[in-house]
Amino acid sequence: MSTEPKPVCRYPVPDVVDLPEDLRDRILEVQHKAGFVPNVFLALARRPAELRAFLAYHDALLLREESGLSKAEKEMVIVATSGANRCLYCVVAHGAILRVYAKAPRLADQLATNPLKAEVTPRQAAMLAFALKVALDAQSITEADYAALREQGWDDEDAWDILSIAGLFGLSNRIANAISLMPNEEFHLMGRLPRTKG
Amino acid sequence: MSTEPKPVCRYPVPDVVDLPEDLRDRILEVQHKAGFVPNVFLALARRPAELRAFLAYHDALLLREESGLSKAEKEMVIVATSGANRCLYCVVAHGAILRVYAKAPRLADQLATNPLKAEVTPRQAAMLAFALKVALDAQSITEADYAALREQGWDDEDAWDILSIAGLFGLSNRIANAISLMPNEEFHLMGRLPRTKG
Amino acid sequence: MSTEPKPVCRYPVPDVVDLPEDLRDRILEVQHKAGFVPNVFLALARRPAELRAFLAYHDALLLREESGLSKAEKEMVIVATSGANRCLYCVVAHGAILRVYAKAPRLADQLATNPLKAEVTPRQAAMLAFALKVALDAQSITEADYAALREQGWDDEDAWDILSIAGLFGLSNRIANAISLMPNEEFHLMGRLPRTKG
Amino acid sequence: MSTEPKPVCRYPVPDVVDLPEDLRDRILEVQHKAGFVPNVFLALARRPAELRAFLAYHDALLLREESGLSKAEKEMVIVATSGANRCLYCVVAHGAILRVYAKAPRLADQLATNPLKAEVTPRQAAMLAFALKVALDAQSITEADYAALREQGWDDEDAWDILSIAGLFGLSNRIANAISLMPNEEFHLMGRLPRTKG
Amino acid sequence: MSTEPKPVCRYPVPDVVDLPEDLRDRILEVQHKAGFVPNVFLALARRPAELRAFLAYHDALLLREESGLSKAEKEMVIVATSGANRCLYCVVAHGAILRVYAKAPRLADQLATNPLKAEVTPRQAAMLAFALKVALDAQSITEADYAALREQGWDDEDAWDILSIAGLFGLSNRIANAISLMPNEEFHLMGRLPRTKG
Amino acid sequence: MSTEPKPVCRYPVPDVVDLPEDLRDRILEVQHKAGFVPNVFLALARRPAELRAFLAYHDALLLREESGLSKAEKEMVIVATSGANRCLYCVVAHGAILRVYAKAPRLADQLATNPLKAEVTPRQAAMLAFALKVALDAQSITEADYAALREQGWDDEDAWDILSIAGLFGLSNRIANAISLMPNEEFHLMGRLPRTKG
Repeated sequence: MSTEPKPVCRYPVPDVVDLPEDLRDRILEVQHKAGFVPNVFLALARRPAELRAFLAYHDALLLREESGLSKAEKEMVIVATSGANRCLYCVVAHGAILRVYAKAPRLADQLATNPLKAEVTPRQAAMLAFALKVALDAQSITEADYAALREQGWDDEDAWDILSIAGLFGLSNRIANAISLMPNEEFHLMGRLPRTKG
Repeated sequence: MSTEPKPVCRYPVPDVVDLPEDLRDRILEVQHKAGFVPNVFLALARRPAELRAFLAYHDALLLREESGLSKAEKEMVIVATSGANRCLYCVVAHGAILRVYAKAPRLADQLATNPLKAEVTPRQAAMLAFALKVALDAQSITEADYAALREQGWDDEDAWDILSIAGLFGLSNRIANAISLMPNEEFHLMGRLPRTKG
Repeated sequence: MSTEPKPVCRYPVPDVVDLPEDLRDRILEVQHKAGFVPNVFLALARRPAELRAFLAYHDALLLREESGLSKAEKEMVIVATSGANRCLYCVVAHGAILRVYAKAPRLADQLATNPLKAEVTPRQAAMLAFALKVALDAQSITEADYAALREQGWDDEDAWDILSIAGLFGLSNRIANAISLMPNEEFHLMGRLPRTKG
Repeated sequence: MSTEPKPVCRYPVPDVVDLPEDLRDRILEVQHKAGFVPNVFLALARRPAELRAFLAYHDALLLREESGLSKAEKEMVIVATSGANRCLYCVVAHGAILRVYAKAPRLADQLATNPLKAEVTPRQAAMLAFALKVALDAQSITEADYAALREQGWDDEDAWDILSIAGLFGLSNRIANAISLMPNEEFHLMGRLPRTKG
Repeated sequence: MSTEPKPVCRYPVPDVVDLPEDLRDRILEVQHKAGFVPNVFLALARRPAELRAFLAYHDALLLREESGLSKAEKEMVIVATSGANRCLYCVVAHGAILRVYAKAPRLADQLATNPLKAEVTPRQAAMLAFALKVALDAQSITEADYAALREQGWDDEDAWDILSIAGLFGLSNRIANAISLMPNEEFHLMGRLPRTKG
Repeated sequence: MSTEPKPVCRYPVPDVVDLPEDLRDRILEVQHKAGFVPNVFLALARRPAELRAFLAYHDALLLREESGLSKAEKEMVIVATSGANRCLYCVVAHGAILRVYAKAPRLADQLATNPLKAEVTPRQAAMLAFALKVALDAQSITEADYAALREQGWDDEDAWDILSIAGLFGLSNRIANAISLMPNEEFHLMGRLPRTKG
């Protein structure tokens, strides 16, 4: 019914074997874990220094262990803000990761479409409201927004995590939209079935 | 990880057995076909005259056989405009129907998130652009919008179908959002697996 | 000074005598009462099943006797939301009906232009605020919006009336704008003179 | 049905007899011609120097005889931009003046609600498009906007008239909205009846 | 690096010596004080009646001695609203005047870019919030906005000053943007150096 | 006139001497060159891994030698998009850098306020239009936007530079706004005087 699958993105993508060793190793590691290479690696790899910087920022925020946000909550921030920015790649790819982390097969669809309807706690709703304001109207943030977070138990370090993750995906949503980055087919289904491992 | 499932909607819903016979029969027929009762029936059934009118309008547009739009294309209009209106129920429920009709497991996620990235033909892209203008900025429609449709082979009757479907979901998206109508769990997965029947 | 009158709409309209009997009877009844056939009947009558469904939904909401909204208040919802949607037909036609029902010759102009300046009670202002949020930003409605209605004495059934009427005119405003439906000349003056009967 | 009439505006208004002689004379002259004192005079008269400046700017633009715009066309610019700015006073008062000048009883309702549906010539439509861009998005005006005017026979002096009138009502719409200036009852009906003189 | 300087504006400007005596005198007086003729005088002088009216309104508001706003506070209103309207001439010219009046070399850059980040008192922040609502959303102003002013010690006469200044620059921002009025080079630096006199 | 200077940002900032050696060296190098430590270093340094990643991305894009954009053109992209995002820190800091690189003392004020009025070449105007679409509406980018770049001689690698820089400042504008990062006083004046070295 629909047309041929679109390419990874509107730019040519390099062969993994031609990449610098550090990136090749990282990509092969991801491929080993996930069973496929997420397209964002291929798209950004054409400029190795930029991919390295993106991954470093990504890891600094998302792998940071001492965070007050759980891994699933970080993905909730990503899916909600990427939905607000209408970024197909990030909604589908991080929606998949969220389903796996949260073991909540409906949550990503809810957050991507309308976070106000999502099955989340009031504390998570406050986190999402702050993240969406960073994504859509950061110029209007005031101390009142931090106070609303504190009322739900989020401190200033948590706020930094939220605003930085929303900021980083402000970057990647823009790049992905501008280059028409398509999500891998695998992401659409991942985490939707009872025993999917992701 | 996430909270308890939300109820069908913020209003109490009637028991199917208590409904007028015509509605009960219609609902049981749907249940027989789909395996479950879509929540929109339950939510609107509390006002039988309104549900009857909604179904009559729905059927007049979506079951109309002589249309220049295929059944899948009508669902594409619904998913894209419901995504633009951020209506969780319609995105998930009609996304499922679209996957089944179009045998295209990724298409609904694409249309709901960013129709410009969807794997559709140029003719379908013109249909979607017109539908989205009806949904988001109908006040600005001029003859130039009809001309853009004609360039892709859509005539005035097709345009009427598109604008009426986008209009009808302008209604149902608003009601569903206002009453917090939740999609049935079944819709999230329907049509995503190779052999799913919907 | 201005140009020739525009046609009823950009689509050809059928002759009333050629319509199915039920629609012909309904239209002749309206003509008998109002002295003319409102253009919306002519425009939608080219697709009898759709006109029937529209009238059924219209009647279910606007003729519903047990409503907590008066007939004039329902028209206030229509005029304010149609003004927000910049729908010429609905502003002028329902503005006329509102003037007649409310015996308030200035009220329709106020509501269509800027509802915040309209001469209404605080209770009606709450009704209008809810209706306008349904029309313009239904995705953001939360329980706080229902609470604001309750503070002014509107219960959940009243809320359903308001949201459904705003929703239905979300549909008809979009269709009327898309097909350039023009109001009958008679509507512009109706209810503006002390003894006009409408 | 509706509430008590609102006052002239949210500020107290002076007695005409207490005004400086020049303003008193001007107001009495208007009253003599129109049969009543338009509320804008009363509202602004509390600061005589400001009313004088406003009238001077108004007269310089609207009474300018050598203009390429007719008096009715200038009022078309005012009504369309005031509708876009949702200014009740200016829509109703200048709508009345437009009906009288243009002998077109429906034109003001059309322009205030949706200028794209108004019964105007293509040349007037180009004038209105430019005026609306000045009103709503002046920051984006480029030479292409002047070229679109020229294509319809409007030269740079006409453009200056249009942009200055749209600019002046950018001022008066903001003041009228901010002080809740109400139109005189007389304006609502003026020019709607075959023999009304205005 | 950049291109040739742009002209004063897209319209030809008159020679000062050819202007009516009152305008010539006013312009020479300004030139004597400032060391140059601000471009707005040259641009508007092509229509002497309009320049006279503009200057009369400007003087009535900005030279009004009994105002509750200081001269610097009036310029703060102008710079913040002109920034919101993205008016290059008014941001740069009135930014210079503000720097001189307030002896605050950073304040104009702050207000033009994001007033929420500006180094102002809470009282001034309330003034700016009201002014920005007049500039960007006057249609939504209600008594609650006046109450917020009163909480910070601004009375109704102060509110009139704020709304009128924001209104007047609603006019001049639109004209300046539409005619591409460029600020004089001198304004960019004025008031930035410790001993600049302006 | 204005209030006390605001702190670097709403978060405490570390002492440079306490930072990891690589960051301390980098900061001291910048301080040596510029004469002061730009506040963004202090603000982000509280999370060394994040600052390292940000600087790596920044350097990969802005120090990339083979780019088709000059250093000044890259700063033009930054100032225009940061103005659109109303980011005080980035407008003032990168405005200073742009003035120094471009030897164009007015250009930064123009780009931050209204890029359409800036004294740039048509080729640079196309670059800015693409950058602003990435910043404000990346979801709507299509091949037509790349074609508009190509018409002005920008190839796909240049497009990648533009979209990535606009994307990166989509990130830093959001963080700076959210944490209320203030520009160093020195930036406001830098590059405005004939012999300033920056």
